[in-house]
Amino acid sequence: MISPQLKNQFIAIVGSKYYLDSPNELYAYSYDATPIYQSMPDAVIMPETTQEVSDILKLANEHLIPVVPRGSGTNLAGGTIPVEGGIVLNMNRFNKIYEIDQRNLTATIGTGVVTADLHKAVEAVGLFYPPDPGSMRISTVGGNMAQCAGGMRGLKYGVTKDYIMGLEYVLPSGEILRCGGKNVKDVAGYDMTRLMVGSEGTLGVVTEITVKLVPLPETKRTLVAYYRNLVDAARTVETVIASKIIPATMEFMDQSTMKVVDDFAKLGLPLEMKSMLLIEQDGSEDQVVKDIEKIAEIARQEGAALVEVARTIEEGAKLLAARRSALAALSRLRPTTILEDATVPRSRLAEIVEVVEQVAVKYDLQICTFGHAGDGNLHPTCMTDERNKEEIHRVEQAFDEIFRAAIRMGGTITGEHGVGMAKMNYLSLKVGDGGVELMKRLKAAFDPNNIMNPGKMFANSERRRVVVKQ
Amino acid sequence: MISPQLKNQFIAIVGSKYYLDSPNELYAYSYDATPIYQSMPDAVIMPETTQEVSDILKLANEHLIPVVPRGSGTNLAGGTIPVEGGIVLNMNRFNKIYEIDQRNLTATIGTGVVTADLHKAVEAVGLFYPPDPGSMRISTVGGNMAQCAGGMRGLKYGVTKDYIMGLEYVLPSGEILRCGGKNVKDVAGYDMTRLMVGSEGTLGVVTEITVKLVPLPETKRTLVAYYRNLVDAARTVETVIASKIIPATMEFMDQSTMKVVDDFAKLGLPLEMKSMLLIEQDGSEDQVVKDIEKIAEIARQEGAALVEVARTIEEGAKLLAARRSALAALSRLRPTTILEDATVPRSRLAEIVEVVEQVAVKYDLQICTFGHAGDGNLHPTCMTDERNKEEIHRVEQAFDEIFRAAIRMGGTITGEHGVGMAKMNYLSLKVGDGGVELMKRLKAAFDPNNIMNPGKMFANSERRRVVVKQ
Repeated sequence: MISPQLKNQFIAIVGSKYYLDSPNELYAYSYDATPIYQSMPDAVIMPETTQEVSDILKLANEHLIPVVPRGSGTNLAGGTIPVEGGIVLNMNRFNKIYEIDQRNLTATIGTGVVTADLHKAVEAVGLFYPPDPGSMRISTVGGNMAQCAGGMRGLKYGVTKDYIMGLEYVLPSGEILRCGGKNVKDVAGYDMTRLMVGSEGTLGVVTEITVKLVPLPETKRTLVAYYRNLVDAARTVETVIASKIIPATMEFMDQSTMKVVDDFAKLGLPLEMKSMLLIEQDGSEDQVVKDIEKIAEIARQEGAALVEVARTIEEGAKLLAARRSALAALSRLRPTTILEDATVPRSRLAEIVEVVEQVAVKYDLQICTFGHAGDGNLHPTCMTDERNKEEIHRVEQAFDEIFRAAIRMGGTITGEHGVGMAKMNYLSLKVGDGGVELMKRLKAAFDPNNIMNPGKMFANSERRRVVVKQ
Repeated sequence: MISPQLKNQFIAIVGSKYYLDSPNELYAYSYDATPIYQSMPDAVIMPETTQEVSDILKLANEHLIPVVPRGSGTNLAGGTIPVEGGIVLNMNRFNKIYEIDQRNLTATIGTGVVTADLHKAVEAVGLFYPPDPGSMRISTVGGNMAQCAGGMRGLKYGVTKDYIMGLEYVLPSGEILRCGGKNVKDVAGYDMTRLMVGSEGTLGVVTEITVKLVPLPETKRTLVAYYRNLVDAARTVETVIASKIIPATMEFMDQSTMKVVDDFAKLGLPLEMKSMLLIEQDGSEDQVVKDIEKIAEIARQEGAALVEVARTIEEGAKLLAARRSALAALSRLRPTTILEDATVPRSRLAEIVEVVEQVAVKYDLQICTFGHAGDGNLHPTCMTDERNKEEIHRVEQAFDEIFRAAIRMGGTITGEHGVGMAKMNYLSLKVGDGGVELMKRLKAAFDPNNIMNPGKMFANSERRRVVVKQ
């Protein structure tokens, strides 16, 4: 796809050190954190400046070479896999924090800044960037933005899209544009910022982001509640919200997940329990103490067998770390771990957990469920083996049923991981065929040659899950 | 434009009672709250159901008849003026609150529900819909959504776009689509919800909205601080935020505004003062008392000549009402009141206020400034007379300078009123020519025949302010 002359033109832009096309290097960029999918790119290019990105895109667009922007490749829906070959555009050199503006409560950064590094930098000055996706120690803010990543603090603080105030982005034509900025209020024209957030690299390449910051909460406190069934846990979540308390986080783990996590983290969890809730509140000392007391009361009222309030911040952090390690713990069990994020309105929580259990039995699969109970965004996770084609087929059918159940309950096919390739064929289930057609027309307005991350988001085949190996 | 046969086809959809085309009726819909602009429609149609909207749009689209959706017509940028004639689509019959979901903290309503009515309904069950634009007792949530209206609570609570979770909307083709829903997290495809919010009726007609609600705060407290200059007021705003306190509202009024408001509301304001800040905090009793004390201390530290804490909620409400009546009070002075909303990052507040003062002197105009100091969104308001062409010309030049100054400071041309017609020619100053071209392509994806609110948002002439009378 990339002729020697074209290769030289790309090298003339970034230098030969930042143009990679040896087989080993290409292999490293042929997959991301999504199980099963893989596809080789033709080249990996690592630009350093916005002008370089512009020159690269212009050239790629002229020659109809696909371009797949990539941060750290922690994508869980195949979003960063170069399924049609072409260029993987590695944005890691855009890793500077240009400014933390303490007067306007903003930070301006390159899209390659690792999320946890941003957290550290702003917390050092008493500020807070709340989005905390599970991948935050590795993923980039740019990657989070492309997927509109969520995290555990979503219920109280919102998700990535609520914190992106402005962008610098490059169109396939090479045109460099800006949208938004440091203004809390800005209604000049269409909300291009919000359109780019969650666009999964299909509209252009974002090079710079201005994020909103909030004051760092004074303190936090963690509570854990164990239940003999699922319904009581779900009801606790609802009753807490109905009592007008919005905790910073309300995480759920079912018994299977608890067993695996405890084996990994050795926390001494009561494994005869059917489910647990991990609840954290932050804010002023008074408010936090009051809220956590009230939440403990509600948990007991709704049938919790055991309620424990962490005595120190460190103890609370240890419990939360156990939840954060759920995916890693589950991944140890079998070669392939498929993590989904079917989401429902909070009031349907217990129902969807029961559906997942029934589906697991029906298709004879091992599916554990954990996730963000507070906002209805659960992660049914299937431990399987991609080499077992027959089992994989059952996995596809199982998740098909789970997606359809979530939609029937007024939910969505993806709460935070994105559509990518994995959920492409389900998009019309959520937004309708007309909605998909409209989105395609919208993409054409940005990317008439369809070079930006082609083969993602919009269904182009009937096959549910596709193993792509080259 | 609308032949007798076509008129009958529209009447067949809504009934003759809801098709208006007498000269008086058309005149009533030829203007909105924007001074100077006016243009007669060919018909006013009042649909009741989404299917009626679909049938109307399909027919209008076939015959290339412009359609201008309208709520209560309180638009301040000419957004609801039918500048190319055609149909004004009055959405007032979509005025039902379909559901308040206390478990999921959402409300689902027709776009014609008046914002204050929504406030009342949700507050009756201890919930809260924070967006409070100045027009809220008259404007509709649909109108607020089309403009992404702001309000006084924007600093702490955000603006309309932060509270719109899902929509039902109709394309010019007649296609009925849905986006978003009750899910706190949803990343299935492009964020069409956020694209529709603030799209000023140029992409389609929104018929139903699902809004996010939050718990109603326990209590609130109001403080007022008076200053001998502008800079100390601006510095107070900054220092409060820098101290990690985010009040619910921080409003500013300059001396000219104070004088006019006091003449109207008889509050006994100290009129020798150069500026005043009105600050309100809400939340739990303890937090509110603590924050207001701290804010009072900061105000004195930054040079406030006088600081008063309202003793009761009623007293505080009275002060806030004075601020809310600023526009009404100013409107009494001269026949034409031009309210603008040039916005800057908070840290540039004092500068923009000084620029406005200098510009007023330079062009010999009466311009008062009040507004949302907390988020840098001020309302320089010019009292003038549209019949005085020479003075209007000076007004245009003055605001031209103010817009350019705001942009130079990293601000925007419009914080909450929208582009409409009034700021059309300044859009490229904020988003660039490339940005405007991209937005036009985006609109074409939705509305290839350009029937949706044509003549708005995108510049099509060099004239700054146009008096359009037919």
